[in-house]
Amino acid sequence: MSERLFAGIDIGGTKTAVALAMSNGEIISRHYFLTRPERGARNVVDEIIRALDAMIAEAGGNLAAIGIGCCGPLDIERGLILSPPNLPGWDSFPIVEYFQQNFAVPIALENDANSAALGEHRFGAGRGFENLVYMTVSTGIGGGIIINNRLIHGIGAGAGEFGHMTVTSDEINCGCGSQGCLEAICSGTSIARRARKLLAGGHSSLMSGLVNKKDEITAGILVEAARRGDYIANLIWKETIHYLAVGISSIAVMIAPEAFIIGGGVSSAGEKMFFAPLRQAVYQRVKMLPAEQIKILAAELKNESGIYGALALAFDAVRKS
Amino acid sequence: MSERLFAGIDIGGTKTAVALAMSNGEIISRHYFLTRPERGARNVVDEIIRALDAMIAEAGGNLAAIGIGCCGPLDIERGLILSPPNLPGWDSFPIVEYFQQNFAVPIALENDANSAALGEHRFGAGRGFENLVYMTVSTGIGGGIIINNRLIHGIGAGAGEFGHMTVTSDEINCGCGSQGCLEAICSGTSIARRARKLLAGGHSSLMSGLVNKKDEITAGILVEAARRGDYIANLIWKETIHYLAVGISSIAVMIAPEAFIIGGGVSSAGEKMFFAPLRQAVYQRVKMLPAEQIKILAAELKNESGIYGALALAFDAVRKS
Repeated sequence: MSERLFAGIDIGGTKTAVALAMSNGEIISRHYFLTRPERGARNVVDEIIRALDAMIAEAGGNLAAIGIGCCGPLDIERGLILSPPNLPGWDSFPIVEYFQQNFAVPIALENDANSAALGEHRFGAGRGFENLVYMTVSTGIGGGIIINNRLIHGIGAGAGEFGHMTVTSDEINCGCGSQGCLEAICSGTSIARRARKLLAGGHSSLMSGLVNKKDEITAGILVEAARRGDYIANLIWKETIHYLAVGISSIAVMIAPEAFIIGGGVSSAGEKMFFAPLRQAVYQRVKMLPAEQIKILAAELKNESGIYGALALAFDAVRKS
Repeated sequence: MSERLFAGIDIGGTKTAVALAMSNGEIISRHYFLTRPERGARNVVDEIIRALDAMIAEAGGNLAAIGIGCCGPLDIERGLILSPPNLPGWDSFPIVEYFQQNFAVPIALENDANSAALGEHRFGAGRGFENLVYMTVSTGIGGGIIINNRLIHGIGAGAGEFGHMTVTSDEINCGCGSQGCLEAICSGTSIARRARKLLAGGHSSLMSGLVNKKDEITAGILVEAARRGDYIANLIWKETIHYLAVGISSIAVMIAPEAFIIGGGVSSAGEKMFFAPLRQAVYQRVKMLPAEQIKILAAELKNESGIYGALALAFDAVRKS
């Protein structure tokens, strides 16, 4: 009997990844390319299909299922991409049906943050936890929730939008149209914006020396300056950790998960700068449960959380079919 | 064959209720008494057992199971009451074992807010929703979450502590030891405290005329004054609705439930004063999902949510045994 193969596809606004795995979960080949979504959905998906065909031929087995993680909003029941801001022009694209025309196997679709949550739960830092929260703190802030070993979806598959929890009564406008959202303060983009604003106010900072122009300041630059003891950078970083702790504490008292698994560029500041102070702040705020039993851990699969999640979707699709 | 009977017991700091139902869910008798927890756990539970024995004899059937809702914290796995602030002195009382010595039937224990969530889900305003959030806004603020038709518990059965979500960055201390908690602003107790504080500051208000002494002002008095157009009362009430909307919006973007079922004394301000403005505020804040698909409804079982939940526990205990 020839090897059963599983495909995991992770479609992002910038990059697309395709992976082929054996039934034991081992990835045997990976293919990455720049999405360039402006080419339109069909051209991008055709490139995925060509890559996948080549990978399957090379591996010499039969495809058993496909899992797809994609930036949302999606209609996962009907297999549609709706109108994702990061894939402009892909409105109402029937991605599952399009793949189905080429591969007569079970196909599952999930939004990218949920897919990453699934990846960490099944193959990464979340293994063994029945109830966990995955959060990515990156350009935006999002995530997924696993309860009793299953993703929760909610209305419009909208669960896990942690970036739009209100964490402050201050009048900080968020891109979503609301105020005081976690993402409007703590996303990589927001951190950089707050840094540039303080520097524009004339404050002196090491950050100015780390870039050629002030608009090159990123969250990464700020973390570097904070590490070197810069006052302004530390001010903004401490505020960032505080508001992340506020958001995480609110999630904790609501669902009391066994673990928070945190990924994304901002969390790559690491144990000393990010995880240690975050844990301390959360444990100080959460009084209603044995907070210190709640693990706050770094995602393990880094930029492959999503692709592993897509593979988990493929494995589950076979079990369900 | 004689009728199979199910007992639901709801133990609160003030009042205890015992109900006996038939297998179709119909309650055939109810017994209420003042808990007077200072008598000690054994005396209170003995009174429950005597009441239950009399009710069973009167009904003329066989007891099939018992469900118990009780104020927490509890260890529901081991059937213990831990150290509930509302039942002082009941520390580590093995309530399930104590009942078991008297009744050789399956017995299930759940905290009171979760039990009320279950009651509304099975018998009240939450019927037919797979995913819902029950919230009680009363002396305190708490609740329960139902995902895929099941209560979620979390670490230490601590899920659903909505009162301790952070909703403001203002320095408002909460009894729990944290700051900016929903309960510290929007519970009945907090509403009354804010009213008394403003009046103590010399502001004139209809509220003063509705009570003999300022310390008699309650959330109910404030709502009555607000209804009559009182400026100060409306100020505090609008702030209350705003922060409740902040909390509910954060829950909504996290788990996108089909419905919020809201009970408790503060919500009894009713459709015009409470639910209509609350819905409007939530729908304005939640931009990441089709917010208006999320129902925000009044609990239907009023002060019997808990007793119906305890009965649901009893029915489930038989199915599981």
